[in-house]
Amino acid sequence: MQRILSSQLPAYAGRTVTVAGWVHRRRVLKAVAFLIMRDRAGLVQIVVTDPDLRDKLEELTEETVVEVTGTVTINSAAPLGVELTQPVVRALSAPAAPPPFDLYRPLLTANLPTQLDHASVALRHATRRRAVTAAAAAAEGFRATLDARGFTEIFTPKIVASATESGANVFGIDYFGSRAFLAQSPQFYKQLMVGVFEQVYEVGPVFRAEPHDTARHLAQYTSLDVELGFIEDHLDVMAVLRDVVAGMTEAVADRLPGVKMPIVPAEIPAVHFTTALEIAGAPADEPDLAPAHERALGEWALREHGSDFLFVTGYPMRKRPFYTHPEPGRPTHSNSFDLLFRGLEMVTGGQRLHEHADYVAALNGDLTGVETYVEAFRHGMPPHGGFAIGLERFVARLLGATNVREVAVFPRDLHRLTP
Amino acid sequence: MQRILSSQLPAYAGRTVTVAGWVHRRRVLKAVAFLIMRDRAGLVQIVVTDPDLRDKLEELTEETVVEVTGTVTINSAAPLGVELTQPVVRALSAPAAPPPFDLYRPLLTANLPTQLDHASVALRHATRRRAVTAAAAAAEGFRATLDARGFTEIFTPKIVASATESGANVFGIDYFGSRAFLAQSPQFYKQLMVGVFEQVYEVGPVFRAEPHDTARHLAQYTSLDVELGFIEDHLDVMAVLRDVVAGMTEAVADRLPGVKMPIVPAEIPAVHFTTALEIAGAPADEPDLAPAHERALGEWALREHGSDFLFVTGYPMRKRPFYTHPEPGRPTHSNSFDLLFRGLEMVTGGQRLHEHADYVAALNGDLTGVETYVEAFRHGMPPHGGFAIGLERFVARLLGATNVREVAVFPRDLHRLTP
Repeated sequence: MQRILSSQLPAYAGRTVTVAGWVHRRRVLKAVAFLIMRDRAGLVQIVVTDPDLRDKLEELTEETVVEVTGTVTINSAAPLGVELTQPVVRALSAPAAPPPFDLYRPLLTANLPTQLDHASVALRHATRRRAVTAAAAAAEGFRATLDARGFTEIFTPKIVASATESGANVFGIDYFGSRAFLAQSPQFYKQLMVGVFEQVYEVGPVFRAEPHDTARHLAQYTSLDVELGFIEDHLDVMAVLRDVVAGMTEAVADRLPGVKMPIVPAEIPAVHFTTALEIAGAPADEPDLAPAHERALGEWALREHGSDFLFVTGYPMRKRPFYTHPEPGRPTHSNSFDLLFRGLEMVTGGQRLHEHADYVAALNGDLTGVETYVEAFRHGMPPHGGFAIGLERFVARLLGATNVREVAVFPRDLHRLTP
Repeated sequence: MQRILSSQLPAYAGRTVTVAGWVHRRRVLKAVAFLIMRDRAGLVQIVVTDPDLRDKLEELTEETVVEVTGTVTINSAAPLGVELTQPVVRALSAPAAPPPFDLYRPLLTANLPTQLDHASVALRHATRRRAVTAAAAAAEGFRATLDARGFTEIFTPKIVASATESGANVFGIDYFGSRAFLAQSPQFYKQLMVGVFEQVYEVGPVFRAEPHDTARHLAQYTSLDVELGFIEDHLDVMAVLRDVVAGMTEAVADRLPGVKMPIVPAEIPAVHFTTALEIAGAPADEPDLAPAHERALGEWALREHGSDFLFVTGYPMRKRPFYTHPEPGRPTHSNSFDLLFRGLEMVTGGQRLHEHADYVAALNGDLTGVETYVEAFRHGMPPHGGFAIGLERFVARLLGATNVREVAVFPRDLHRLTP
C-alpha cells in the first residue's frame, strides 16, 4: 500500500492507510497502549489494543523505523483530530539503541556540546529541525527573489592561490604540492562575474580560521552573496537587499507557519554613519559602531520608524575593505552600508570601485596576490556593488537562537571537526 | 532615464530610451558608423551619423562600458528589427584595454588554456556564457524538481576529519594545528540527514585531488546530491533521478531556447549489468563496463528503445563502495545503477545499507575514521538510497562540450590554481 504522510491523515477518515516513520514515544497503560510515530510531516497517534502487538511494543524502542497500516479513526483528543486504530506494525529497522537524550520532550535537555556530539540524532528533535528547515527556506527565498530579477547563479572556486582579502584567518591547503588557501568569500569572483552576467549570486560555503570561540563564529558557514552592475550607487544595492530579506522572511514563514517573522518595511529607514553616531550618543570621531551603539540604533529605529530593520550608510573608509567605493564629495566616508536587525549587524555591503586606476591607487600600487583580479578591471567594468549574508547567523537572529551552531547541521569551529 | 534591456527595445519603437552595456564592436564606414553594444540580454545596433560622436568612437574601445540614449527606430536589417538612432553616448568606465582575444567573433579563437588564463574576459563570449548559463539553469531545475517533492536542502561540512570514503585523492588542510581534509562528497552527511528530513539534497562544491590531467576531471566541481528514505529499493531512486534529469533539461531549454535538449523518456529503459555485458559483447566475468561497452549500450538503447538515456543496474558489489546495498538473492551484485547518456556514464547511485550490523560487516569490523557515521545507524534509519550528479560534467555532455572546463567559471585542476 502506498505510504501517506501524517499530515494527510485527516483526509482519509474511515479508510485503511499505511504510514511510516520513527517510533517517537510509547505509552503503555492498563487497558491500551499508544504508539506515537513521527514522520517528516508530524506525529501520528496509534492505538494498540491487541495484546500480541502490545507485547511487541517492547522491542519497538524509540527511534526504531516502522511502517504501520491501520484505520483512520476520528478522535478529537488526538493531535491531528484522528488516530490510527487496529494497527499492523512492521519494523523497517532493527530495534534502535536508546538515543543519548530524549527526543520526545518539548525541549532538548542535553547541553549544546552533547547535542553536537550526537548531531545526527539531535537534529531529529523538533527545535533543531525547525532551525535547519528555516535555513533551507531562507536560501530558497534568497534565490527566488533574485531569479525573478534575472540574476544568474554562479559557482566559484573555494581553493585560491592567495589569502589577500583579509589577510588573516585563512586555512592553508596542500594543493598538489603547492601552498593554497580556502576562500574566505567569493568577493573577487562575484565582482568579475558582473562583467559577464551583470547580476550574479552564489550560495556556498566560505571558510574562516576563526580563533574566536563564540556563539556567532563558525569555521565554515554558508554565504549568500550578491553582486550587481549598472547601479547609480549603494542605494540601488540596498533596494535589492531589502527585497531579498523580505523574500527570505516570507519563505521562512511559508515553510514554518508557526514561526513569527518580522515585518520588512517597503522602505527600510536609513541613517548616515555620522547621524548614527549622534543617535547612539557616541563621540563624532568614532571609526565604527560598537555593539552598544547598534543596540541604541535598533531602539531608535523601532521608536521613530516602527521598524525592526535599519540601514546605516557611509561608514568611514578606513574600516572598510580596499575595494570599497568612497562617498562622492566626502572621501573619508564610503558608499557602504550595514543592515541592522533589532540592533544587531545582519548584512554588510556597498558600492565597489570599478576603475582599474582606482584599484591601483587603493592598493598603493602593490598588487601582490591580486594581479588577475585587478587586471580584469582594465577590460570595462560597470559601476557595481553587492552584499553578503551569513545564512546561519541571519537565521539564528530571525529565530532568536542564541547560538549560530543551532542553525548549522554539523558545525565546524575551533574545537570541533566531527561528526 | 531608467535603463531598459536590449531585448525590450522592439516594444519601444519610436520612443527615446536608455540602454547600457559593453562596446561589443565598432564599424566605421564612410558616411556612417555602427556601434554594437552588448548587455546581458543581447546586442543592440547603434547608428552614429553625428561627426563629433563618430570621432569620439576612437576612445570607445571594445569592452568599454557605455550608457546610450537614443531613438528606437525600425530597421528590418538590424539584429532585433530595431536599432538606436540619434544616440547620446556616455562612457561608464575608462576606455577598456584590448581583450587578449576578440570577443565579437562567433567563436573564441584562443585555445582553452589562454581562455582560462583570462577567464573573466573569455566568459563574456557568447559560447562561454551559454555554458555557464546552462549550468545555472540545470541547478535551478534540479532544485525545483526536488522542492516540488518535499525534499529539504542541506548545507554540510566541507572540512572533514578523515578521508575514508575513497581513501585517495584528498586535499589535506591545516585545521587549527590538526590534520583535516576537504570533503570528496557529502555522502555520509546526506545519509545521516535522511534520519532527520527523510529526503534531502545538497548543491555544493566537492574536492578531488585528481592526479589526472584530462578533459573531464576537475579538482573542484559542483555536486548535486540527493538522498531519500522509505524506498523499496534502487528502482524508487531511479524514478526520482528520471524526474530530476527531466527537470534539469527542461530548465536549460527554458533559459536557452536556442539550445536543443535531449528528450527524457517517461520511463528510462533499464538493463541489469549481466544483460548489459551480453549486449556489449563483453565476457560474462567482467567486473565493470569499459567505455567501449558503454558506447555499445548507448547505441543499443537508441536502436531498441529510441532513447538517449539508459539505466544499467545491478553492478557487481566489488566495484561499488562499502555502503552499497546488495541485490537480494544475488549478493555478488548490488542494488545500484549508472545512468548512461549517449553511451557515457552520467550519474551513479543506488540503495545503501541501513542497518548498523550490515555496516560493521561490510567494513569487516574496522570502523576507523567512520565511527560517528556508522554509530548513527544504531538509531533507526529507514531503507534509503540516492545519487550524485557532477554539474559541470553533466552540462558538458548535454551541450556536447568537449572539455568540462568550458562549463566551470574559474576551473581548478592539477596545473591551475588561478585566476
